Amino acid sequence: MQFRSHQLENGLEVIAECNPQAYSTAISYFVRTGARDESAPVAGVSHFLEHMVFKGTESRSAEDVNRELDELGSQSNAFTSEEQTVYYCTVLPEYQLPALNLLTDVMRPSLRQDDFDMEKQVILEEIAKYADQPPFGAHEMALALHFGDHPLHHSVLGTTESVSALSRDQMLEYFNRQYSPGNLKLVLAGNVDFDAVVDQVERDTKHWTPFDVTRDTPRAVGTGDCKFIRKEMAALDYTIQLYDGPSATDPTRYAGRVMSTIFGDDNGSRMFWEFIDTGKAEYAVLESCEYQGTGAFLSYLCCQPSQYDANIQRIAEMLADLNETGITNDELELALSKICSHIVLQSERPASRMFSVGANWLQRGTYHTVRETIDQYKAVTRDDIQNLLTQFKLDRPTTVSVGPKK
Amino acid sequence: MQFRSHQLENGLEVIAECNPQAYSTAISYFVRTGARDESAPVAGVSHFLEHMVFKGTESRSAEDVNRELDELGSQSNAFTSEEQTVYYCTVLPEYQLPALNLLTDVMRPSLRQDDFDMEKQVILEEIAKYADQPPFGAHEMALALHFGDHPLHHSVLGTTESVSALSRDQMLEYFNRQYSPGNLKLVLAGNVDFDAVVDQVERDTKHWTPFDVTRDTPRAVGTGDCKFIRKEMAALDYTIQLYDGPSATDPTRYAGRVMSTIFGDDNGSRMFWEFIDTGKAEYAVLESCEYQGTGAFLSYLCCQPSQYDANIQRIAEMLADLNETGITNDELELALSKICSHIVLQSERPASRMFSVGANWLQRGTYHTVRETIDQYKAVTRDDIQNLLTQFKLDRPTTVSVGPKK
Repeated sequence: MQFRSHQLENGLEVIAECNPQAYSTAISYFVRTGARDESAPVAGVSHFLEHMVFKGTESRSAEDVNRELDELGSQSNAFTSEEQTVYYCTVLPEYQLPALNLLTDVMRPSLRQDDFDMEKQVILEEIAKYADQPPFGAHEMALALHFGDHPLHHSVLGTTESVSALSRDQMLEYFNRQYSPGNLKLVLAGNVDFDAVVDQVERDTKHWTPFDVTRDTPRAVGTGDCKFIRKEMAALDYTIQLYDGPSATDPTRYAGRVMSTIFGDDNGSRMFWEFIDTGKAEYAVLESCEYQGTGAFLSYLCCQPSQYDANIQRIAEMLADLNETGITNDELELALSKICSHIVLQSERPASRMFSVGANWLQRGTYHTVRETIDQYKAVTRDDIQNLLTQFKLDRPTTVSVGPKK
Repeated sequence: MQFRSHQLENGLEVIAECNPQAYSTAISYFVRTGARDESAPVAGVSHFLEHMVFKGTESRSAEDVNRELDELGSQSNAFTSEEQTVYYCTVLPEYQLPALNLLTDVMRPSLRQDDFDMEKQVILEEIAKYADQPPFGAHEMALALHFGDHPLHHSVLGTTESVSALSRDQMLEYFNRQYSPGNLKLVLAGNVDFDAVVDQVERDTKHWTPFDVTRDTPRAVGTGDCKFIRKEMAALDYTIQLYDGPSATDPTRYAGRVMSTIFGDDNGSRMFWEFIDTGKAEYAVLESCEYQGTGAFLSYLCCQPSQYDANIQRIAEMLADLNETGITNDELELALSKICSHIVLQSERPASRMFSVGANWLQRGTYHTVRETIDQYKAVTRDDIQNLLTQFKLDRPTTVSVGPKK
């Protein structure tokens, strides 16, 4: 396993975790752009653009892109979040250069008006479908309520209104503002021929012009507001609560994840034994969400409406107790064993390593081996958890609940 | 990569694909039992029993099982199909022996009446939930209609009636008839200490008494019947069609899979370009389903009700054309490249290899390396496809369609 990195003249960084033993090569472009970089009138443009990227370039039609990905036997996809847009594929090592050529080409999409109009319908259907599924938008509404006028309040999908009103020119303007070579990272893992990759991508991106991209990353303070939404077709109550938490560069984030595992993992945590094992809730977890400049803890409770009041009350009591008496050594040991085991089990596929290495590079500009990541967690002590809880008291949640009787 | 196998005195076979380089150990019990081994009054018992297996043994409560799996940092689960029930977990290599001890212990579950009554509610909810999701039972109804009185006509989940009426004694009777050590295979992959595994499992299964288990595996001839079911809440038509196809031991099954990829893969196939790329359907695939003694090709079409007639007509025409003019060399080459690439990409995790090695052993009693499997596919010629189509004409589908206007 060898880490390699190189920056091209146009600003594009190429990084790779090379493992000559691997049976596959995972290739991705991480773009530092997402819902938080959108203005309200173009909400949803990052995600819509992600779809348009596969609709062809100057030299390739949408059919060409589709057929070539298929001919390379690749497994490919993309996703958009608040902070990043990621395009990726996995191929056999002998196809890494043609696959890279294709993936690089689509990073400069044509955004043809016809394709734009057709794909808009696909996005609108996706929004409609999403709104009809549990938790019925509770997640997006909770982020919006918690973050107030902070950039992180935007929904990734956008709204039916914003996407309907979006023009092809607005998307092009967004693309021209965000997709600078310096704002993209080419991230590879597995069986990578790094020198050949750099050579080829240098040629293939010669015409990419660099420009400055900025992002505001202020610290957010959650509003602590409450909102209840009635959804008659729902059988259960779906509740999201958000608390302030460590940011993506805050060293206490490791303690934050250990605490989340102890308190709110989906199996074997305090919430599991209190709510799931006893049948008081269908689902109950707490997790850490780290962003650039700010962060949050998010709890998700799904239960019968009749049990809502008691459960919400109980979560508050359990958090107060956590703050007062901390965690036990046994809890710490079990959590570390779970976290480290999952990190190793996840690391076996080059594609998984690519996501981990890419996210780390995009958020912090650093590279960690699996071993180094594990060591960071193993260094967490009970005192670290106590310090975390002094800094983030988890006593002032922003709450959004959707249910049949709200 | 080394293949090892050993049969214990009680009949239990232990097989493993050992890779000392792997970061994890995947452990599973493959049980040769499923819906096809059920009589009508106990329909669903295999799947219900799969749930009960995690509810504890003589020496472990349900909480113990849950907690220990967690302490081992394992990723574990189980599934039931027409022909097999599989229990598995993945752990770090240093935990393979305690994880194996746990997994072996739960293969002799207590089936306590209290747990049985509680879990029955979970199963009934699962059946209700499943019935409310697309394709609204079309899959199970199509199998039932196609297979007539053949054992494969049973639904894996069973029905609300059969599960409600099921008693704990009936489940015990089924367990005592099916879970003979000779009917189980212990399958491992990844970083396996094979000798230590055999030693331990020999000790841990000393009290397992062998007995004979039989299964009828007659060839089925599809009924070719049609059935339309009205479901007002559905927005689209969901249609399953079944045709006779090669069995799990039929050498033409490789040609069957290549043909399915060319005709009905979810990307880049004839059906893809005809229905998906043009927007005539939301989803349209054809795949090969191989069972012991018999087999089928299954097509799944999901489209607007207004497009149903034309689409179904078109599928029949396309199959007739396939039968008449066969496939092209380009199609064959593309399909082989896709299939082989996916086999390699899937093989990277020990857990994936375990599923592949285990299924192959259970269905055919043979072991193939990744290389050997690929070579089997690469040997398929256009003549093989023609011979397949002479044997299985794909001209007499059994059809079940569920939609709002049926």
